[in-house]
Amino acid sequence: MIPDLLEIPALRAAYAAGLTPEALINALYDRIDTYPDKAVFISLVPREEALAAARSVDLSLPLAGVPYVVKDNIDVAGMPTTAACPDFAYTAARDATVVAKLRATGAILLGKTNLDQFATGLNGTRSPYGAPRSVFNADYISGGSSSGSAVAVAAGLAAFSLGTDTAGSGRVPAACNNIVGLKPSIGRISAAGVVPACKSLDCVAIFANSAADAMDVLRMAEGYDEADAYSRVPREVALPVAPKLGVLAVKDRDFAGDEQAAKLYAEAIAQAGALGWAMVEIDYAPLRDIATLLYGGAFVAERLAAVRAFYASHAESFDPTVRHIIGGAEKFSAADAFADIYKVQALRHAALAELGKCDALLLPTAPAIFTVAEMLEQPVKHNSTLGLYTNFVNLLDLAAIALPAGFRENGLPFGVTFIGPAFSDATLAGYASTLHAALGAGAGVNQAQPTATYSAPAPEEVTVVVAGAHLSGMVLNHELVHLGARLVSSTTTAPDYKLYALATTPPKPGLAQTPGFAGSGIAVEVWALSPENFGRFVAALPAPMGIGRVTLADGSVHPGFLCEAYALEGATDITGFGGWRAYRASLS
Amino acid sequence: MIPDLLEIPALRAAYAAGLTPEALINALYDRIDTYPDKAVFISLVPREEALAAARSVDLSLPLAGVPYVVKDNIDVAGMPTTAACPDFAYTAARDATVVAKLRATGAILLGKTNLDQFATGLNGTRSPYGAPRSVFNADYISGGSSSGSAVAVAAGLAAFSLGTDTAGSGRVPAACNNIVGLKPSIGRISAAGVVPACKSLDCVAIFANSAADAMDVLRMAEGYDEADAYSRVPREVALPVAPKLGVLAVKDRDFAGDEQAAKLYAEAIAQAGALGWAMVEIDYAPLRDIATLLYGGAFVAERLAAVRAFYASHAESFDPTVRHIIGGAEKFSAADAFADIYKVQALRHAALAELGKCDALLLPTAPAIFTVAEMLEQPVKHNSTLGLYTNFVNLLDLAAIALPAGFRENGLPFGVTFIGPAFSDATLAGYASTLHAALGAGAGVNQAQPTATYSAPAPEEVTVVVAGAHLSGMVLNHELVHLGARLVSSTTTAPDYKLYALATTPPKPGLAQTPGFAGSGIAVEVWALSPENFGRFVAALPAPMGIGRVTLADGSVHPGFLCEAYALEGATDITGFGGWRAYRASLS
Repeated sequence: MIPDLLEIPALRAAYAAGLTPEALINALYDRIDTYPDKAVFISLVPREEALAAARSVDLSLPLAGVPYVVKDNIDVAGMPTTAACPDFAYTAARDATVVAKLRATGAILLGKTNLDQFATGLNGTRSPYGAPRSVFNADYISGGSSSGSAVAVAAGLAAFSLGTDTAGSGRVPAACNNIVGLKPSIGRISAAGVVPACKSLDCVAIFANSAADAMDVLRMAEGYDEADAYSRVPREVALPVAPKLGVLAVKDRDFAGDEQAAKLYAEAIAQAGALGWAMVEIDYAPLRDIATLLYGGAFVAERLAAVRAFYASHAESFDPTVRHIIGGAEKFSAADAFADIYKVQALRHAALAELGKCDALLLPTAPAIFTVAEMLEQPVKHNSTLGLYTNFVNLLDLAAIALPAGFRENGLPFGVTFIGPAFSDATLAGYASTLHAALGAGAGVNQAQPTATYSAPAPEEVTVVVAGAHLSGMVLNHELVHLGARLVSSTTTAPDYKLYALATTPPKPGLAQTPGFAGSGIAVEVWALSPENFGRFVAALPAPMGIGRVTLADGSVHPGFLCEAYALEGATDITGFGGWRAYRASLS
Repeated sequence: MIPDLLEIPALRAAYAAGLTPEALINALYDRIDTYPDKAVFISLVPREEALAAARSVDLSLPLAGVPYVVKDNIDVAGMPTTAACPDFAYTAARDATVVAKLRATGAILLGKTNLDQFATGLNGTRSPYGAPRSVFNADYISGGSSSGSAVAVAAGLAAFSLGTDTAGSGRVPAACNNIVGLKPSIGRISAAGVVPACKSLDCVAIFANSAADAMDVLRMAEGYDEADAYSRVPREVALPVAPKLGVLAVKDRDFAGDEQAAKLYAEAIAQAGALGWAMVEIDYAPLRDIATLLYGGAFVAERLAAVRAFYASHAESFDPTVRHIIGGAEKFSAADAFADIYKVQALRHAALAELGKCDALLLPTAPAIFTVAEMLEQPVKHNSTLGLYTNFVNLLDLAAIALPAGFRENGLPFGVTFIGPAFSDATLAGYASTLHAALGAGAGVNQAQPTATYSAPAPEEVTVVVAGAHLSGMVLNHELVHLGARLVSSTTTAPDYKLYALATTPPKPGLAQTPGFAGSGIAVEVWALSPENFGRFVAALPAPMGIGRVTLADGSVHPGFLCEAYALEGATDITGFGGWRAYRASLS
């Protein structure tokens, strides 16, 4: 009765069919107890406490009984926050804003997950609590820094989880475990109550089995928060339904020798093309240069600033690699910091020019995956490789969502990521949902295909029915084109419309609904444009023309041309021509 | 024949009346030669060269023959750029972008002006080329760092000038010399070819006799520039025509003991009130805290980053105070820099909440003015005082314009500044022009009142004539209110309109133009709203209502309600009631 894949809609269906939250939570604790990888959690909510929450949950709440876990750099009231550094641990007095929001939705917290210490890493091996492993092969890394959060979802221990993402920590572990990782726009989810890594760049990320689930959670988790100086009011930046995607040029397809990954990336692009989406090759150089700056320059001092007092007194408490990275920031001066900020700003111009060539990017999430042994041998080099396609994203204030994109021959998963402008999160999730379904890689260790799909809300547009000089190719059509309107369809009105040639100079068409009349309909076109440009269009119309509502042959009703009543007096009934174009043609 | 006040329209009029650019330029070189303050210029364009430019200028160009000067931290091809540090000087290979743009407008460059070294200061005394003096009293500072640029305009040596502004250098010298100082939004004018002070904050500023002149120059000087990483595409953020102004609460009115200044600030507020503008007191604390950070924290490392290599090899070449400030930045680490960036970000939230209480701020430009002797005695303390009301502006990405606001009893001028959101430059200039005229302080040393005024383009709005349920207080009026519409007027239509009660349920009003009918007109209201919301309004109208054009009693024509012709059949003529409101009242 408990679904294999803990998709949120499947859970809701199971609850509707009689499963109780208590039974589910109990079963999940059994799964957690028997899950062989003991490095996934740093602390668990006591089973009895979670069961009590499950028993008392109000089933009318939006995420009622949905089990989740959070990365252990996010505060939960009454639980320790370790950031994977035992000496740093403190008991949180209150929930992080995002946890408080989720608590109010009826979601049930099960525990706090392992991470690369202080979220410094993309691999999952930098923790004294052990290295969580990919759910597909225990020799391999889980990815990081949100290692435990990704594994918990992929292994079916939770329906979703929270991670954080500064350089790719909400995306790389998704790729290593065949799930979705949504890295929202900076400030969309409050970071108040989260241990900072790079405060100006940190994002709370969401791991889930589907883009639909991730968006479901995002809608509950997002919101402006006065307590977070980087918080922003969520808004929607709509991109086209069928995007033009920027992809790596062949010369930039660096997979660190992983030919299987290269092949899977090419297949993802092909599949996107089969969906009717356009592709354009971008120059990756400015993005790569920005990516390099995140760890290679003074920006690491953000990580030092985040834990400065603790580092000063407890340097020996750090994981050696993390200490090496954070301590390395001590050599940078404030002037270095500003010099690097200028470098990013200069690269931003070049990067935005590349992004301007497309609606969104479709990139590999990570070029390769490593064994834990390989990782420990080359902890900095391999980590840089993992971040090759993720590091630039937050520095450029972009949104991203990682999704499963198939398997290497050795059974390890590969992922791709959509990247778009700030606040394009919903549109990107729509792309991800569509491509995820098309690629058929399923989700999590069971590779079951999610059933729910997510469609981004369409950009707000107004349709307008035109019947005269605004028809394609006719004398006033340029007015629509100039306003960015696009032709949606050529059709006819409902039968009860007549068309008149008004006694104006030049003659204008008068479309008039005539209740009771049963003709063949008048040829019209439907155009779509933004409310703003529609407003400008209507405001500029000369008398006796007006915009009312026009019923089409299919019964749909749209704003469209009509004319003032007085103008129909003395007008010539030209309904027999079937439309203005035919009437005009008859005159020449 | 040469106008006392070198206003651009006056110059144009003089040229139209027969003055030649050559004669003007020649006369200005005579003025420059005899001007007693020899600290204004660092270098002059050779007279013969400027005269040659004047002789060959194409008089059809927008700023043909308009004489100007630029601060000597802005490159002019073939001339030295010193930044007021002789050992730093280099001969510029090419014009700064802004100079190239002005060259193309036919404006005539006369020379390069003195400044606080490396634009580090707000007082004008930090230069080995001497301290320019206020045009009103040679004992007093000119303000800085754009000292020479402000004096040149105020003394009638040039029609306008370019300065730079990081902490207030484009505003404080305007206040000290009774002219207008426009500090545009960051990135509106390219800073390519300008010696940076704080690269992320630097703005090229414009000094002029009037807001109209400053806007005239801004329109020529602005524009996106790939060569400047902080460049942005100019746009307009419109504020209300009659603003609500944020002013200092009495407890925050710190004028460093200058009671005359306090009185003049209160008078400026009173005058703004007399213009019908609303005032609201804001809490200045978060703005003051941000202001303090600009010089009091790691942000000074931006100044070090700007001249780092030179400072390392030539520390002894610096002005002692400038060396003290820039050298002081060496003690800050990259972690300090990020910690201060976080502080600003946190204060930004509080500051934006204060700014959210009003459309724009009306603040003193500077609280006080000092003698050169006082300044040299307390170079850091008095400089901080000068920046009390300017320092926060660029850190918060705001636009500002300083204007003359009267004189102290000792004859020294006082100024106020409008401050608004990024890209509200044009609207702020409109406020400044209006208040400048109302205060009557004139411009420059002659205190002649500018003749040209500047009106910001009105926000784009659409009017709509309503005649039925959308009238004020009636059942659908909330639809307009919800869309942010405002009532413009209550009036009547032209005489040839009839009003019908349609046979709909509920009955709807049908306004119908009826050529030849001569009634008393129908009572209507005109509402105004944005094109976008007008578009939404029209798109949501139900049949048989439509929007066409309605002629009012005064003959003006606006978008407004009409209805489909068929709906008038069987409708009741209620024209005799004079309007929908009276008709509905008759039913109850």
